[in-house]
Amino acid sequence: MPDSEDTPRVGIAMGSESDLPVMRNAAAILHEFDVPYEMRVLSAHRTPGVMKDYAETAADRGVKVIIAGAGGAAHLPGMIAASTPLPVLGVPVKTSTLNGIDSLLSVVQMPGGVPVGTLAINGAKNAALLALQILGTHNADLQDAVRAYKSDLTDTVEGMDARVQAFDPTESTD
Amino acid sequence: MPDSEDTPRVGIAMGSESDLPVMRNAAAILHEFDVPYEMRVLSAHRTPGVMKDYAETAADRGVKVIIAGAGGAAHLPGMIAASTPLPVLGVPVKTSTLNGIDSLLSVVQMPGGVPVGTLAINGAKNAALLALQILGTHNADLQDAVRAYKSDLTDTVEGMDARVQAFDPTESTD
Amino acid sequence: MPDSEDTPRVGIAMGSESDLPVMRNAAAILHEFDVPYEMRVLSAHRTPGVMKDYAETAADRGVKVIIAGAGGAAHLPGMIAASTPLPVLGVPVKTSTLNGIDSLLSVVQMPGGVPVGTLAINGAKNAALLALQILGTHNADLQDAVRAYKSDLTDTVEGMDARVQAFDPTESTD
Amino acid sequence: MPDSEDTPRVGIAMGSESDLPVMRNAAAILHEFDVPYEMRVLSAHRTPGVMKDYAETAADRGVKVIIAGAGGAAHLPGMIAASTPLPVLGVPVKTSTLNGIDSLLSVVQMPGGVPVGTLAINGAKNAALLALQILGTHNADLQDAVRAYKSDLTDTVEGMDARVQAFDPTESTD
Amino acid sequence: MPDSEDTPRVGIAMGSESDLPVMRNAAAILHEFDVPYEMRVLSAHRTPGVMKDYAETAADRGVKVIIAGAGGAAHLPGMIAASTPLPVLGVPVKTSTLNGIDSLLSVVQMPGGVPVGTLAINGAKNAALLALQILGTHNADLQDAVRAYKSDLTDTVEGMDARVQAFDPTESTD
Amino acid sequence: MPDSEDTPRVGIAMGSESDLPVMRNAAAILHEFDVPYEMRVLSAHRTPGVMKDYAETAADRGVKVIIAGAGGAAHLPGMIAASTPLPVLGVPVKTSTLNGIDSLLSVVQMPGGVPVGTLAINGAKNAALLALQILGTHNADLQDAVRAYKSDLTDTVEGMDARVQAFDPTESTD
Amino acid sequence: MPDSEDTPRVGIAMGSESDLPVMRNAAAILHEFDVPYEMRVLSAHRTPGVMKDYAETAADRGVKVIIAGAGGAAHLPGMIAASTPLPVLGVPVKTSTLNGIDSLLSVVQMPGGVPVGTLAINGAKNAALLALQILGTHNADLQDAVRAYKSDLTDTVEGMDARVQAFDPTESTD
Amino acid sequence: MPDSEDTPRVGIAMGSESDLPVMRNAAAILHEFDVPYEMRVLSAHRTPGVMKDYAETAADRGVKVIIAGAGGAAHLPGMIAASTPLPVLGVPVKTSTLNGIDSLLSVVQMPGGVPVGTLAINGAKNAALLALQILGTHNADLQDAVRAYKSDLTDTVEGMDARVQAFDPTESTD
Repeated sequence: MPDSEDTPRVGIAMGSESDLPVMRNAAAILHEFDVPYEMRVLSAHRTPGVMKDYAETAADRGVKVIIAGAGGAAHLPGMIAASTPLPVLGVPVKTSTLNGIDSLLSVVQMPGGVPVGTLAINGAKNAALLALQILGTHNADLQDAVRAYKSDLTDTVEGMDARVQAFDPTESTD
Repeated sequence: MPDSEDTPRVGIAMGSESDLPVMRNAAAILHEFDVPYEMRVLSAHRTPGVMKDYAETAADRGVKVIIAGAGGAAHLPGMIAASTPLPVLGVPVKTSTLNGIDSLLSVVQMPGGVPVGTLAINGAKNAALLALQILGTHNADLQDAVRAYKSDLTDTVEGMDARVQAFDPTESTD
Repeated sequence: MPDSEDTPRVGIAMGSESDLPVMRNAAAILHEFDVPYEMRVLSAHRTPGVMKDYAETAADRGVKVIIAGAGGAAHLPGMIAASTPLPVLGVPVKTSTLNGIDSLLSVVQMPGGVPVGTLAINGAKNAALLALQILGTHNADLQDAVRAYKSDLTDTVEGMDARVQAFDPTESTD
Repeated sequence: MPDSEDTPRVGIAMGSESDLPVMRNAAAILHEFDVPYEMRVLSAHRTPGVMKDYAETAADRGVKVIIAGAGGAAHLPGMIAASTPLPVLGVPVKTSTLNGIDSLLSVVQMPGGVPVGTLAINGAKNAALLALQILGTHNADLQDAVRAYKSDLTDTVEGMDARVQAFDPTESTD
Repeated sequence: MPDSEDTPRVGIAMGSESDLPVMRNAAAILHEFDVPYEMRVLSAHRTPGVMKDYAETAADRGVKVIIAGAGGAAHLPGMIAASTPLPVLGVPVKTSTLNGIDSLLSVVQMPGGVPVGTLAINGAKNAALLALQILGTHNADLQDAVRAYKSDLTDTVEGMDARVQAFDPTESTD
Repeated sequence: MPDSEDTPRVGIAMGSESDLPVMRNAAAILHEFDVPYEMRVLSAHRTPGVMKDYAETAADRGVKVIIAGAGGAAHLPGMIAASTPLPVLGVPVKTSTLNGIDSLLSVVQMPGGVPVGTLAINGAKNAALLALQILGTHNADLQDAVRAYKSDLTDTVEGMDARVQAFDPTESTD
Repeated sequence: MPDSEDTPRVGIAMGSESDLPVMRNAAAILHEFDVPYEMRVLSAHRTPGVMKDYAETAADRGVKVIIAGAGGAAHLPGMIAASTPLPVLGVPVKTSTLNGIDSLLSVVQMPGGVPVGTLAINGAKNAALLALQILGTHNADLQDAVRAYKSDLTDTVEGMDARVQAFDPTESTD
Repeated sequence: MPDSEDTPRVGIAMGSESDLPVMRNAAAILHEFDVPYEMRVLSAHRTPGVMKDYAETAADRGVKVIIAGAGGAAHLPGMIAASTPLPVLGVPVKTSTLNGIDSLLSVVQMPGGVPVGTLAINGAKNAALLALQILGTHNADLQDAVRAYKSDLTDTVEGMDARVQAFDPTESTD
């Protein structure tokens, strides 16, 4: 198993380039935490062979977690999960007709034996954070970084809190 | 391409043996119309390789239409469609939690380029009839048989109509 | 049965001219594959007689597959299916109130005996591709064209894949 | 237009004899109010010709209101409405998979120009009461009978009220 | 009971002036058919007394049908129906959060004894047409006018049909 | 305003005696906390006058909170809220067709100006607890009793916790 | 327990500053009725400790009612309710993907023992009115103010009614 | 950090003992794979303090993954995720009213910063498998065991396949 510092530890897969505006948020988080990743367009329906190869070889290439996003009858996360022993995280992408409830059900309602850990509709950022938490179970530095990130969230909310406490309901919204 | 009278013309695939009580209704119709078929358990998630081989070779083995049924995050119809030029008909199977709305959306909301002609939840019988109509486009005898089947439906409804016209609302339901 | 090269092989029906922006995508695909088609506005509710005549005569005029699209309480696909032995493919059109979930259920949940092979909401393009797959079951050239089309999809996705692999998450979205 | 005392004033149509346990409740109400009616099984999908004839001739036979019940992709109410100037009342029948939400949307979401006055899922009794209210707009005796019926409902609820006021929450439910 | 030619025969009620852009379509149809009507804002929740008086006195003032439209937890149609022997038609108005599925269920799912004939979400035009059909059951001129209206619909669809038959899928959409 | 110890402080209203198996759970809680209450069947649709009188006079009779439960197009909570300055708590009752999603939306989606504090489907017990919390805002003994009740819940959960910690997954479920 | 005139009687909590455009409507109503309140950003997920402290101490600081708004998997109202004997009112905030049906179900479907009185999606104004009604159960002036507010609503609707009665359906909408 | 062979590596939490019939399936899988675990009843709403302590200390006690199951307004998974840097997997438990769609949305739709990897409704078995996959990312033996488990699934499906291929549709279902 490859083990250089640059070996991608997280694979980010999406069903179409049109999912990039959502899925890039996963990449941004991993970049922020300095975790090597790779990002691919792999279509369960249009490049099933490439997808299967990717899933089957990921563990041996040193990948530890795969994030997969897709919309509509979203089969990519489940089909990757079918071909790898790695944990797979699914991101249901919002659709123009049913807003992503179709994507959500297609990703989360997997049969026994082949789990996909599913995030919120368009929840690519959280998929990356969950991947970091998974990596952090065996990487104390990363787990500390996750704790620090959560602590920053606390600070952000406290800043909001200060502003809202000072809010005057009679002021104009303009 | 094999072309004996016994060559299966319709493939019936299901994701699990637990779908058999639904999917056997497709087999029964094809049997009634004397159309050779084959019936398989092929799991997109648990036997993806077998499934892919099945889909890729079906056309060359003489199959003309594939019917695929599955429940929940139902990926089987779409994944078969990904690997064959044949028309694929999808049967969303009712689930114990969401009644099959998850199956329906997972089967029908396919992306552009990879169609699945979807039937009603548990609509395996209609999938077989649609397969017969497809075969009937180039088989006048079969198209006539479909016309006869529809004519029988008319007779059945007319029988119901006669009974209901004579119905007395004051009679007991016991 | 008419059999000239120009005989329409696919009928495209829609419930209203307002469905044309969706349904024209079916026509575009058939045009691209050089398959003769005809396109009609036939309303189950406003021109039921014309619709019924169309459905009853289509097979004898040489049509092999009918694609029907409609929105809301979408009865056109089912009512055409009631009057023809041909395979009928249904396209649920997105609605301004319920986004097409009403159309989808009205099209797909057909009773036993009268199938409609249903595509995704607004899935007119896929309806045409499924019609081509149906015609291709008895037309090797067309089946080869479908294979080539799928191969082009693969190329398209691989192009997307190359761009996304090179994507830099720190770049601006502007 | 026939006008004897026995001329059916309300037509009750259903898509299948299996809808009779629901639709008989409409007949029972009309029977209770001594309003002549006729009850038919007319399938939009399996006997479209008979259905169309029925709808086209109902007004001339003296029918004033048509009640139509069906389940799933429930096209019967809308298709009858397409072929008659009479008011059509729709009863969405509960289905075994989606509980009747499919029936409801298929019946109520009619396009402009062809209304169906839709009742609750399985609301056949209320369909008959609405038919009586419609007939009552030009029949003072019937309108009085509707008022009396409502008054009886009041009495029934007041009886319930008396029992519930006396209810002891510590008593056993056995 | 008043019976001049100007006596309003149809009452149009809405829960708020914000429903006027939807409900005015009912008024427009009645105006087109020269049927006298009255239009009111009556809130089940904010002017329950005025609403109740309106409903209780409508029949005696010569009104024959009441159309009521409201959104969200839409109680107006049902509460008017509770206080009149007249037929009540309900129009669920689209909402900004749930698109009107809340309105639809609040209007249509009435308990036994108190029917509301429900139209599609925002279906005010159809409510007026159904009111005309109800009035037409005892007014041959009006029934003829309804027939003529339907005939015009047929012409409109045939005009659409001619344009769509001539449609060229290669033309630009600009 | 009456103020004896026996003056009912909470009114429990339901639309039908068939709601009693759900609504009695509210009575049981109030009984347990020794808070006087009254329980009524008041139908928004069948006894609108009685209901309106009840709502308009409740405050002057000493009632502090009204709990109202109903199913389907559930108008009772909202209509009571329309006629009282008291806080009204709504209990959507489960229905045989749509499981209570119709009830929930009919109760909770109230327009601005007329709030109903809505509990879970069939949440009558919680409605009573919320009523106790409301009364407790000005009754220290009752607020203490609520704290004690919550403390008992903690004990109950801790008892569950002890049993589950000792659970052996290999034991039979028989 | 603090009891000065300026002691906040209502706490308004929200999960994020992005909920302020909705939740400020609660503040505006309380300001209009001269009821002291405090407004906070408290995140169940990002500042759970601060939130818990807030909930546990609110009663002792003189707060009588807590209003909590959040979107998506909206846990704030329920988690505040878990740590206070005060009545908690929940405002499900509309979401960009599922329009707030996720928020609604996350807020309203609370288990037995921990009620949240839930308002409509984005119903912050009504939450404040319900809080006023709760305070009004022991404050006659406030209850009178609520009555006056309702009376003003009546006037507003009557103004709408006058305008709509005068409406001319033939006028342009421009 | 404790590191004996018996240190629980997976925590299984549930909101109530009534969730045990679902959640025990997670325990059974972990038992089968010889992975030490602990199982707890921790209620976000009834024992929020115990729950918070559990979540805050889990990482330091050597737990690597937490599985949390709950129904209705299911806050347990999200609230545990709020207080730990460990990966949290959520199991929405089926409910008697809404079948678990409420649980699913309450668990999966988490805000940015606090992910919960969500499984199917009642998907406790898959939650355990996903936990094993997570542990397996740094434990080659466990990853091999997961591969072997998947291989067994393949065998199971192939056994089903053999039986279904031999199925005779004319045989009785008795």
